[in-house]
Amino acid sequence: MPETVVMKFGGTSVADAERITRAAGRIVERAREGNHVVAVLSARGKHTDELVSLAHEVSQRPHPRELDMLLSTGERVTCALAAMVINDLGFEAISLTGSQAGIVTDSGHTKAKIIEVKAHRIRQALDSGKVVLVAGFQGVSQRSLDVTTLGRGGSDTTAVALAAALGAEVCEIFTDVAGVFSADPRIVPEARRLPVLTFEEMLEMAASGAGVLQLRSVEYARNHGVTIHCRSSFEEGPGTVIQDEQMTMERPLVTAVTHSTSEARITLLRLPDRPGIAGRVLTALADANVNVDMIIQNEPESEGHSADMSVTVPRDDLPAAREALEGLEDELGFGSVQTDDEMGKVSLVGAGMKSHPGVAAKALTVIGDAGINIEMISTSPIKISCVVREEHVAAAVRELHTAFGLGADSVLPEDVAGDHRPKVSS
Amino acid sequence: MPETVVMKFGGTSVADAERITRAAGRIVERAREGNHVVAVLSARGKHTDELVSLAHEVSQRPHPRELDMLLSTGERVTCALAAMVINDLGFEAISLTGSQAGIVTDSGHTKAKIIEVKAHRIRQALDSGKVVLVAGFQGVSQRSLDVTTLGRGGSDTTAVALAAALGAEVCEIFTDVAGVFSADPRIVPEARRLPVLTFEEMLEMAASGAGVLQLRSVEYARNHGVTIHCRSSFEEGPGTVIQDEQMTMERPLVTAVTHSTSEARITLLRLPDRPGIAGRVLTALADANVNVDMIIQNEPESEGHSADMSVTVPRDDLPAAREALEGLEDELGFGSVQTDDEMGKVSLVGAGMKSHPGVAAKALTVIGDAGINIEMISTSPIKISCVVREEHVAAAVRELHTAFGLGADSVLPEDVAGDHRPKVSS
Repeated sequence: MPETVVMKFGGTSVADAERITRAAGRIVERAREGNHVVAVLSARGKHTDELVSLAHEVSQRPHPRELDMLLSTGERVTCALAAMVINDLGFEAISLTGSQAGIVTDSGHTKAKIIEVKAHRIRQALDSGKVVLVAGFQGVSQRSLDVTTLGRGGSDTTAVALAAALGAEVCEIFTDVAGVFSADPRIVPEARRLPVLTFEEMLEMAASGAGVLQLRSVEYARNHGVTIHCRSSFEEGPGTVIQDEQMTMERPLVTAVTHSTSEARITLLRLPDRPGIAGRVLTALADANVNVDMIIQNEPESEGHSADMSVTVPRDDLPAAREALEGLEDELGFGSVQTDDEMGKVSLVGAGMKSHPGVAAKALTVIGDAGINIEMISTSPIKISCVVREEHVAAAVRELHTAFGLGADSVLPEDVAGDHRPKVSS
Repeated sequence: MPETVVMKFGGTSVADAERITRAAGRIVERAREGNHVVAVLSARGKHTDELVSLAHEVSQRPHPRELDMLLSTGERVTCALAAMVINDLGFEAISLTGSQAGIVTDSGHTKAKIIEVKAHRIRQALDSGKVVLVAGFQGVSQRSLDVTTLGRGGSDTTAVALAAALGAEVCEIFTDVAGVFSADPRIVPEARRLPVLTFEEMLEMAASGAGVLQLRSVEYARNHGVTIHCRSSFEEGPGTVIQDEQMTMERPLVTAVTHSTSEARITLLRLPDRPGIAGRVLTALADANVNVDMIIQNEPESEGHSADMSVTVPRDDLPAAREALEGLEDELGFGSVQTDDEMGKVSLVGAGMKSHPGVAAKALTVIGDAGINIEMISTSPIKISCVVREEHVAAAVRELHTAFGLGADSVLPEDVAGDHRPKVSS
């Protein structure tokens, strides 16, 4: 019985004819090894952006159902092209739309959730010896049979969902980087590739700025126990394996520093100290589709009976957030709304942190010693995040990376990855 | 009960955002009149050509199934964009792929034939008050549920097939010309728009060079009794109605002059005069997918017991035709194969010709008097075609157009069209 491998190639990996041909070559390698291969492809490089521009040329607010119909064409193009190449290489290949691949979703156009994967058509094709190419990022709605899309980065989720449905050994995600790093190598040149990560670490990293994998695909992988293998499509290399904690060896205290430079902070001054006020504020933000990250509320200073409340939001959401909160001004009677859109965030992630409460103290000291003011702090069992001004983000990342010994010359050997890599990827 | 109208917009009519918006406006006009409207759209201008180039960048012989998957995306893009505009204009609109629209075909990828139209999803959408946009040129194969395409110009066939399935009053075909003309206005400036044509006339015209409608769509319309209304998408105007002969008034003797400048002639010299030889030649050409137009075989001159046989084929098919025939040389023992790829064809079409055998004589005399040599002749009850050298085509067209009084100042009034136009198009 052949092993089933799911491979996913991102937009830069299929940006033009030459790269599509190269990706097809990698897919064929896997098939030649005797595996059942399913490959999920994204749209070519900037193609999705071009389609979005086209939509905005004809409509200020493109109808979501029609936007999905439009955007879903991008992945179909790359899949058809890759299938042509693979057929030319002597392997039978067939491209499937999300709908044909059985990716059944809810009706939440432009950000649909996968409800079910009906993989019988893929299985049938695999059993008859075909390589299967699946258009990523899309599905078909359960109730109305409309084309849906899963939101930006949805192809990662397509790949993980197919890996789960097919019981694949591994879901290989090919991107333009060699794996997941201990920090962004553009900021920390000595950052090292991490051979292995737990789902929880990857979740915290994705949520705090690491762009390699979409948060949602990691959640899906964790929930379904799908091992993810992040690799470069431009070079050979062991990449990064993301898997269940019990499958990994003892984790280091701290694994990586992540960051984001596109945060904004909103502060409501002199908020009356009444029960339910904070809930009212957060509901208003949620209704405006604003993703709130950190929340801090000061205790009222003595008898003043009013408090200040700060939240951070993605910078792009700031206008919507401000509008939503200003609409509450009369109802809640707070003093004023202050905003600052030049905020950033630095986070330290590590599964080993759980049992070592000293990490937070050390991190804060390191940042403070560098003369950087910490504006807000939030923690989880395996993460500590500090909001700092955007201009200080790079320095904070470098200080933490050095202080916690995350570089290539640190205690952990560079390549213990061999132990963790799934068998089929050898 | 509202009337159902099927409208079709060709590639130049949806070439960019502005034209898509204009086409959407025309669709909305029809909906505002209270009709059930189904609009079939082609891909944007040169978009299909671009997709074909992309395929040839990755493969010398793109796999037909995958080529169909690739090409079918073009029409989906325009339909989604038009649906966005129509939604913005306050009408509910929904775009459907060929598959979603129920266009069921055989598995002949890149030139599939429509087997059945399962229009329940369209009907449902129309009944719930939606404008329906259907991606032209494509369907889904009955057996394997793969995306298929109907070949170049297939969107006309999609529109006619939907009109037939929905029992539409009329199928409106919008192009970049004002209708069907008595000759190509680029060659004959005084050519006039023809208000009405029979299916048979339009079939002969489409087969002999008039590019307004695809031959196949006219055949489909005749077989299913669908009235076609050709109109310009860039100006208001009565256009040309194509309908059953019994619905039209007495037809003029001659309706139009058509022409083609991309013919080639192949002559087999000294072919042995044995039964079955001609059949063998034509079978070989058919096997090579060459479309033979005219066939002429000379009687053997006295006792020589050999004849010459000439056929005309589309110029693009000449290499394939020559190859096929040269393969027969040993088997059949003919003298040699001569080819000439600078041939053209001029045809005179008119339903009234049937009962007036004098037309052919007059046509040949007119061309001869202009000093143009006629190389081959073929006739049907309502058409006479003459093969002439390509350089003489324009002159022959002009001479015939004048001699048969087809110009705007001829006997027939310019606008008797009002009588023939379907009610809904008023």
